[in-house]
Amino acid sequence: MSPADAAGPADVVVALDVGGTGMKCALVRPDGSTVHTERHPTDAGRGPDAVVETILDVAEGLAGKARADGLDPVALGIAVPGVVDEAAGVAVWSANVGFRDVPLRDLAAARLGLPTALGHDVRVGGLAEARLGAGRGTGHVLFVAIGTGIAAAHVVDGVAATGAHGAAGEIGHILVRPGGPRCGCGRDGCLEAVASASAIARRYAEATGAGPTGTPASAADVADRAAAGEPAAAGVWAEAVEALADGLATGQSLYDVESIVVGGGLAQAGPRLFDPLRAALHERMTFHRRPRLVAAALGDEAGCLGAALLALDAR
Amino acid sequence: MSPADAAGPADVVVALDVGGTGMKCALVRPDGSTVHTERHPTDAGRGPDAVVETILDVAEGLAGKARADGLDPVALGIAVPGVVDEAAGVAVWSANVGFRDVPLRDLAAARLGLPTALGHDVRVGGLAEARLGAGRGTGHVLFVAIGTGIAAAHVVDGVAATGAHGAAGEIGHILVRPGGPRCGCGRDGCLEAVASASAIARRYAEATGAGPTGTPASAADVADRAAAGEPAAAGVWAEAVEALADGLATGQSLYDVESIVVGGGLAQAGPRLFDPLRAALHERMTFHRRPRLVAAALGDEAGCLGAALLALDAR
Repeated sequence: MSPADAAGPADVVVALDVGGTGMKCALVRPDGSTVHTERHPTDAGRGPDAVVETILDVAEGLAGKARADGLDPVALGIAVPGVVDEAAGVAVWSANVGFRDVPLRDLAAARLGLPTALGHDVRVGGLAEARLGAGRGTGHVLFVAIGTGIAAAHVVDGVAATGAHGAAGEIGHILVRPGGPRCGCGRDGCLEAVASASAIARRYAEATGAGPTGTPASAADVADRAAAGEPAAAGVWAEAVEALADGLATGQSLYDVESIVVGGGLAQAGPRLFDPLRAALHERMTFHRRPRLVAAALGDEAGCLGAALLALDAR
Repeated sequence: MSPADAAGPADVVVALDVGGTGMKCALVRPDGSTVHTERHPTDAGRGPDAVVETILDVAEGLAGKARADGLDPVALGIAVPGVVDEAAGVAVWSANVGFRDVPLRDLAAARLGLPTALGHDVRVGGLAEARLGAGRGTGHVLFVAIGTGIAAAHVVDGVAATGAHGAAGEIGHILVRPGGPRCGCGRDGCLEAVASASAIARRYAEATGAGPTGTPASAADVADRAAAGEPAAAGVWAEAVEALADGLATGQSLYDVESIVVGGGLAQAGPRLFDPLRAALHERMTFHRRPRLVAAALGDEAGCLGAALLALDAR
């Protein structure tokens, strides 16, 4: 029985996707349709206790809003970035939210009196893409989010692998360029240090000697300039695409999926990313089965939808 | 309930681990103890039909031997190398046995009249190490077999991931040295091309200019000579260890396991492999939880034991 089968007609899940800057919030029906959305600032600078308080207030407000609208809030799902121990319901380490071993699931369950699930933002995003989005209909999906960083979720039959310590899917920190650029994690040559949106912007600034004045070019700008034939942009973009192809080929070697779904800000580059990336990936598939390579379909709603699915699963 | 709980006192599983050269065969009790073993040549040169016939004859002989000894053969487990579709029971592609889309499970089940499971040799080896061997007691295990090639099995809660097409765990074919040595798969710089036992022997022969005369040094010889301070051997060995550490670090980034169990011929090098490999791996764990790195415990019995476990699971 799927969660939707068991649902009452007025059932909704309160869903929050907490990022370093803002939180996306929604009331989500068990079939994945969204009946209401809100956004709130996270204001992580206030410290973790204040952020937790805001999360609980916002969640309570959403549950109240649901009841006022004649809906029945049946569960609460919260997604946070970093290292998340989903089994224990603990935000182990979330640098950009300031969390360190915060038992967020139990705090929220106690405040709202609802069955609550805590998930990892990329893993629940992958869950949503696999079940409701671009991976729908395929049992083995690798979701890769490329933005400031790069992270992945391996979803098999609608369940995202968490790993032993809530840290599975760190595809941004696999070695692709020995002796390459220094990564934020302290090692050289990680995929994230070559091919994340922020790495592309940084490497282009370095390549062009752009100084601190003026607006620096974003990864999207680099994609545009590469398409327009600017050599420096074309070089940085091609290096990122090659590195991504190496990283995805490694993912395919280890996971053997049917679909690779790429989301996050860099996926907005569309065919400028996907056409060369698909070609480079397939070139690397010697004996492997070629996975489908597709763009994410749910945009920045994926986190809320996935948090809601996780909460329904855990109920 | 574990398989052992459901077992009758005389229950045994007929288990075969089919390799390119020989097949290891056993009668295994549900608790993992072995009551009888046999070895037979595979003689793959005779072609796939003859190999299948031998497998079925040997399995039938083992079942008969069990009954003659007052035991009750309750299931049959067969492990083969290459790409194995365990759900369909098909040996999709096994280069060194000559199989291509052989429905071995159903052929064997029809001949013996026993519930039969077909598994991948490294994945069932991982299953056995995770449940009965060096990974015992840890829920998330990565088993890596290093011999002529390098392959892995990711085992979570006693179940080995197969992937969508039976090809998960191909850690030998992840890129670790861009522009590095050509791999058998056709790409350059795969882990297997730098760090398998055969790659180590080949690279040492290249480094020392050893001609076709005399007995070439094996990987074990290279380890010995490296320990004795021979510079060429020390260089080849160190490069292999560094590449393995990169590959295992990638595995840990993606899978997040508690234990990495290394088996296969190269594991026989003992502390000459494990001491520097553990140090190099831990050096690469910046934000990750460090996995335990241990030697496989079951030796070349792991395949038979794992095939038996798989058959009991599938029953």
